[in-house]
Amino acid sequence: MSGGEALRVAVVQTAPRLGERAANLADMAARARAAAADLTVFPELATCGYAFGARDAVADLAERPGGSPGLDALQALAEELRGALVAGLPLAEGGRLYNAAALLRPGAEPVFYRKLHLFYREPELFDAGDAPPRVHEFRGLRLGLMICFDWIFPELARHLALAGADLIAQPANLVLTLCQDAMVTRAVENRVWTLTANRVGEERFPDGETLRFTGGSQVVDPCGRRVLALPVGEPAAGTADVDPAAARDKMVTARNHVLDDRRPALYRSLVAEDR
Amino acid sequence: MSGGEALRVAVVQTAPRLGERAANLADMAARARAAAADLTVFPELATCGYAFGARDAVADLAERPGGSPGLDALQALAEELRGALVAGLPLAEGGRLYNAAALLRPGAEPVFYRKLHLFYREPELFDAGDAPPRVHEFRGLRLGLMICFDWIFPELARHLALAGADLIAQPANLVLTLCQDAMVTRAVENRVWTLTANRVGEERFPDGETLRFTGGSQVVDPCGRRVLALPVGEPAAGTADVDPAAARDKMVTARNHVLDDRRPALYRSLVAEDR
Repeated sequence: MSGGEALRVAVVQTAPRLGERAANLADMAARARAAAADLTVFPELATCGYAFGARDAVADLAERPGGSPGLDALQALAEELRGALVAGLPLAEGGRLYNAAALLRPGAEPVFYRKLHLFYREPELFDAGDAPPRVHEFRGLRLGLMICFDWIFPELARHLALAGADLIAQPANLVLTLCQDAMVTRAVENRVWTLTANRVGEERFPDGETLRFTGGSQVVDPCGRRVLALPVGEPAAGTADVDPAAARDKMVTARNHVLDDRRPALYRSLVAEDR
Repeated sequence: MSGGEALRVAVVQTAPRLGERAANLADMAARARAAAADLTVFPELATCGYAFGARDAVADLAERPGGSPGLDALQALAEELRGALVAGLPLAEGGRLYNAAALLRPGAEPVFYRKLHLFYREPELFDAGDAPPRVHEFRGLRLGLMICFDWIFPELARHLALAGADLIAQPANLVLTLCQDAMVTRAVENRVWTLTANRVGEERFPDGETLRFTGGSQVVDPCGRRVLALPVGEPAAGTADVDPAAARDKMVTARNHVLDDRRPALYRSLVAEDR
């Protein structure tokens, strides 16, 4: 059990302003500097806001893997803080537009997770990702990403745990209020840390529909204890200490291993393509 | 959406006495008569208790598919009440001994689920089941069974939902306290009803190890609302009205179907036999 050292992690709960990338990035940087953590997680689409009425409007603010204003700023922030950052942002790549989460680490190229399960009106704006998320490493911590509505599909967190994740970082723009408790279950059933960085505030689509985001960002340990919970209604940030070793002990009892006790031969209906 | 009529369901929380099948069955029958429900769910190993020190001791009290004292009594009770019963019991079959749940319906043969994920010391006593659970019908309700520790494996509830279950009945002998909240997540992620009938009391294995069971039996609706919660420390029973149609509406939003939005081609790691 070589878990490495404990890391200080931060979840940052912001109220991004629609379309105002520079202001949003400045707010993110200020809060990350104040948190001074090894790993800082921001909400979904934290750079640009959520309630775009058309794909073109998001595309104008999309980041590009080779370099673009938001990514460059976040990479510089990761170098400055000598820490990792996870941030939700729109990603333009190969003629497609993704609702993505970027992982930025000092001295490394950014890597991305492209949201697999799009919520509500998101298919009007984004293409769904087409690959299961991978696990990345930072200072001995094995880190997986999911985004917001992915929470309702237990398959995704399970995939990340099977791929070796110690911690799942979840940028979110939640409008439902069921996710926070479900992420406790995701932690328990996989014995991993879960970090949810949700946003607050309200946004209005051009057609008038209004979304109110629910805050309540949190950190849950591999035994299901909520070790950090931010308030519901306002921007905030908080930190917690994360020990990777706690997520590598998969024993629920002295005789039950939460991954090895699975019966994969009996779960084949979960991967049937038609039903 | 032909969901059939609403059913009255009961969860019955007992304190079985180890080895005293006749007394346990009498207590179960009295509580089921008082509840007068369409479907009544009892705890795991409700007929016989839990803390057996050896396989032979359980085998003496095991029921047999062709007929045995406990099964015969429960079938007679189902006929008398004109309702379905789900009860945990030991099942001897084909030279094996299972921790099983029986579904008894008036005018029908009993059917069984054999626990797939054995907890803690249970492998000393039982063989693990070797088939995924099936969905059964009663008065328009499609019903799936799981037992206790199965809760920590999201694959099982998902399998039942994909097989068409409206409701998951879970006989339990819980000693951990994480399950009740996780069953809310199971309800939400599958949009099914979940019924947990847990036991109370304390039992001591012959080697002195003592287990305390945690009660808190419950009924959760497909939106994750706990519509019934029994006390933690004492025998009890409660009823709720279950509308199968509520579990057939799988839309989390106007555009998100909790089963159809899955990406099964990307979940293949969940069925890999080695990892």
